[in-house]
This record gives sequence, structure tokens and C-alpha cells, in this order.
Amino acid sequence: MSLARSLKTLSKEEIRAFVASIDYVLTDCDGVLWKELTPIDGSAKVLSLLKSMGKKVFYVTNNSTKTREEYVSKFEKLGFSASKEEIVGTARIVATYLKDKNFTGKAYLIGSKGLGNELSAAGIDFFGLGPDPVQTDNLPEVFDAKFEKDVSAVVVGFDLHISYPKLLKAATFLSNPKCLFVATNTDEVFPAACDNTVPGTGTLVAAVETCSQRKAQIIGKPSTLMFSALAKEHNIDPKRAIMIGDRAKSDILFGKNVGMTTLLVYTGVNSKEDVEMWQTSLDPSDKLLIPDYTLDSLGDLLPLLENLTK
Amino acid sequence: MSLARSLKTLSKEEIRAFVASIDYVLTDCDGVLWKELTPIDGSAKVLSLLKSMGKKVFYVTNNSTKTREEYVSKFEKLGFSASKEEIVGTARIVATYLKDKNFTGKAYLIGSKGLGNELSAAGIDFFGLGPDPVQTDNLPEVFDAKFEKDVSAVVVGFDLHISYPKLLKAATFLSNPKCLFVATNTDEVFPAACDNTVPGTGTLVAAVETCSQRKAQIIGKPSTLMFSALAKEHNIDPKRAIMIGDRAKSDILFGKNVGMTTLLVYTGVNSKEDVEMWQTSLDPSDKLLIPDYTLDSLGDLLPLLENLTK
Repeated sequence: MSLARSLKTLSKEEIRAFVASIDYVLTDCDGVLWKELTPIDGSAKVLSLLKSMGKKVFYVTNNSTKTREEYVSKFEKLGFSASKEEIVGTARIVATYLKDKNFTGKAYLIGSKGLGNELSAAGIDFFGLGPDPVQTDNLPEVFDAKFEKDVSAVVVGFDLHISYPKLLKAATFLSNPKCLFVATNTDEVFPAACDNTVPGTGTLVAAVETCSQRKAQIIGKPSTLMFSALAKEHNIDPKRAIMIGDRAKSDILFGKNVGMTTLLVYTGVNSKEDVEMWQTSLDPSDKLLIPDYTLDSLGDLLPLLENLTK
Repeated sequence: MSLARSLKTLSKEEIRAFVASIDYVLTDCDGVLWKELTPIDGSAKVLSLLKSMGKKVFYVTNNSTKTREEYVSKFEKLGFSASKEEIVGTARIVATYLKDKNFTGKAYLIGSKGLGNELSAAGIDFFGLGPDPVQTDNLPEVFDAKFEKDVSAVVVGFDLHISYPKLLKAATFLSNPKCLFVATNTDEVFPAACDNTVPGTGTLVAAVETCSQRKAQIIGKPSTLMFSALAKEHNIDPKRAIMIGDRAKSDILFGKNVGMTTLLVYTGVNSKEDVEMWQTSLDPSDKLLIPDYTLDSLGDLLPLLENLTK
């Protein structure tokens, strides 16, 4: 039986071996470093200490709402230091994915400005950004709307302005089997800073997949595309890398798909109870979610690391 | 191997036996009788002739946008005659479902006025009707919205005004496991009168199921709840009933679930090619979609029926 180990239960020598086995630290952001605009205690210090120990840190996020430049300033604002090169977000990877496919047509975007900016930066022609609200309660008028249909890709990311006309357009474009269908990620919810349940991009992807009766190419974790993009620029050996995340279905599965060590922290989507459930589950797909290691929060690594120098 | 037969290939004597075997005709509306506001040729005449032959006709629709009264006037406008008692729509059945559960709390509605009116008529307290657009691009402000959380059921039907704040509210209410989750139907698309692909209620249900990570109780076809509601008032023997529809996943499956004879017409969602694919498919779930009989359109039954009196 595969069991997750709390890093806290490791001896000093085991922690030393664990740290020595790692050259690359890949970490998720929402739910590990912060929730919305609130930093999670201790995470910044841990990453800073790991860097000072010579580890290379990369930020791998499914969030598509920001360009890498916008991420750099969010990191600074919340007390983290990161350069553009250390950040891998789905907005950028969607753009490089389309470029790698030699995409030259027009894309329809359900998404945010950040994603739009990365598409623009890659020279991809797109439309759809911003509100597109329904203008009437007359169903046939909405259903029979006339619009430009020369679209070669539908891109779905997080979009606060999701609306019925957007779904209608996406479904109509996707009725052409030659039209590409790309989505940033399938995260059902965001790690919330309050007691609301905050729908994530996966909610919008499920809607478009349903009305188009097609499956999107998913760019974000757990797909290994994010790792390939990173590995192209940095020569990362997955056997000497760890993936840290709060959401097993994206982060831990991604780490395992790539062949990295995995650490699940309980400051975001998944809890200790989830891990215990997967460990006793008979469903093989649950077994895939079990991380190598767990911690209540990334900050809990701080005393373990500091203890090594005592 | 299970094969669908075109009614056109039956001999006069087989048609006579077929007609004699049926006392009750249950028919879907969108895609069989009309598309949006355009009647489908011949359907009204066929139903009228069946009535004159002593058959009882009932209209069984997953569409939740209208009350039964509103349906009666749509029928009249499009050249069909129907009384309130002959119409079974999901709007009404959602209301009776909640009443049967002795529901007394407040419901949150993602849906249309018609559905709201049926809830009101049943004395069910609800809110959520109409536009609820996102008011800012500031994510934390949207995510952390404050709202009334004393909600005991989330009801999802067709809603032109679907928006992010509506999804956020539904997901948050459903995080309470005691909150009921009811949806009118899972139809992915509407039969369209133009070349747009028109997202149906299933698209919205998929979105809410994803962000709530729960499964809705589905009221509409293929669930047998619609038949139970009808059978409660009319003593219908399913063995002497036929279900006519354009969408196998709802109509034909419904007919089979109840034990009726089934007729698929090709004037809406599914085509002859779909049926041929299911017939050669090795997937058992495809086999369930194969109807007993097919016709290009319901109107094609007219000459077959008229021929019996010659």
C-alpha cells in the first residue's frame, strides 16, 4: 500500500538526505504561497532558504489570469521574489502551444486580459475578451445571433465574464472539427480566502466541453506540457526535482506524470482527510493522487531545514 | 443485434398492428413539433389524426423555460392544440419533486421565469431570477462576495443570464451537504433553427456540477420521474404507449427506461448516421440509444396512417 509520509516524521538524517536529493523545486502558487491576496505564513521564507541552499525554484501555475510580468509584480507585492524566467503559467504555455502548431488563424478567447496579452505577445490574432452579456430575453433572437465564424481555435481560460453568448459562440465555432480546442486547466475551484466556494477554470471548460460535445486539449497540470516548456529552457532532471502543490488532481498527478518527488501541503484545496481516503480507497485513480510527502503548510519545512544547520 | 426499423418499411398490415398496439402517444416538443418558433411540417396533422383515432396524446418536454399555461399558448400559436393537462414540462415537475420532499426552505434558482412561476405556484420560496452580472474585474472582490447563505436547495434550469456570480453562489450553497441539488435536464444543446450550436441546460448543469463537485438530481428525461408524474394522473400502461423524440439520450432512453415503444425522428438532434453508428458500436451504452422505430420526420407518419383508411 502506497502511503504519504509527513515530512515532520522524518529524522534529521532523513531530512538531510531528502534535501540533498533535490536540485529543483517546482511549486504551485495559489493555495501554497498565497490565497487570493493573502500570503500563506512561512512559504516565502522556505523558498528563500531553499534558494540560499542552492536549489533552483520554479513557479508552475495553472492560473491563466496573468502574464509572467504581472506575476512578477504579484510575487513582489506578497513578499516573494521571482524573476520572469522562474514563472511558468498556462497563459504563456497556451500561446507557445499554438505557435508550436504553426497556428495562423483567428482564435476565439474565453479568458482574461493576462491570457490575451500572452496571445498577443506571441502574435496570435484573437477576439472575445471582456463582457459579452445577453441583450434580450427573446430566446430565438439569442440563439440565432449572427457573428463572424472564421475561427480556427477556441481557447478557454478563466473568465469572470462568462456568459451565454460566449458559450453559444464557442460551441458554434467548435462544430467545425478543424477548429482547435485548447483550455488552460481543469481546476474545479480556486483555493478561497473566505468561506465561499470559488469556481475555477474547470467549471468553464466543463460547460464548453458539454455544449460542443468535444474534449479540450488541456495545457495545465497534470498535463506534462508545462514541464516540457520549462525543461526546454532549463535542463531539469525530474529525478532531482520536487513538485509542491495543494491540489493533488493537478499538482501531485503532474509531479508523478513527470517523475518528480511530490509534496502536498494542506493550505489549499486538499486536506489530510482526502489523503487518508485515497490511501484506503480501492479506486486505482485515487491511488495516483497520493503524494510522497505531506505537510500542513510549506512553512512547516522551515524548522526542519533550520535544524540541519544546528 | 438490435436494429431500428424505419416505419416506412412496414407493410400496411404491420402499420395497422402498430397503431392498434398503442393507446398513448407521448411526444417530445423541440425538434419533433417545432424548432424554436418554426413548426415542423406535418407534425400537427399527425397528432391531430392520432387523436381522432382515439389515442391519448401527451407532450413531455425537458424544456424548463415555460409554465404549462405558457406552453398552451405556444402550441396554439404554432398550430397545435393542447390542453394544460396534456403537457408535462420539467418546470412543473421540479416544483412537484420539491413539494414531495416536503421542502420548506429557500431555493436558489439558476433558471428562467417559467420555472420560477411554477415554483411560485407550488408555494416554493426562491431567489436568483434574472441578470446577476459581474460588477468588477477585481477577482478577490468577486470571489469574496457577501450574500445570504440560508439556502436549502439549488435548482438549475435553462438560464440565458448565466454568470460567474451565479456559479459562485450555487457552488457555495452546495458546499452544505444538506442543500438539495436539482436540475431540470442534461440536454447538451437545443435543436437549432439556424446553423449555430445552441447550448442547452446540460451545459449549465455541467458547470454547476463541476464547481460544486456534486451530482444533481436530474428531473427530466431520461429519468422516469416525468413518467411517474404523468402516470399519477392518467392510468398509462407503458406497454401500450409510444415515446416519440429527436434526442436519443433523453427521449429514447426515457421511453426504454419506462418500458414504452420508441420512435426517433430525424428533425432535431440525432440523425440516421448516429443510429447506424450505435448499431455497429461495441459500447453497451450506445446500444441503449437504439430506438424501435425511426422516421425522417413525424409528418412521414401521415401517409402511412391515411393509407389505413383506404
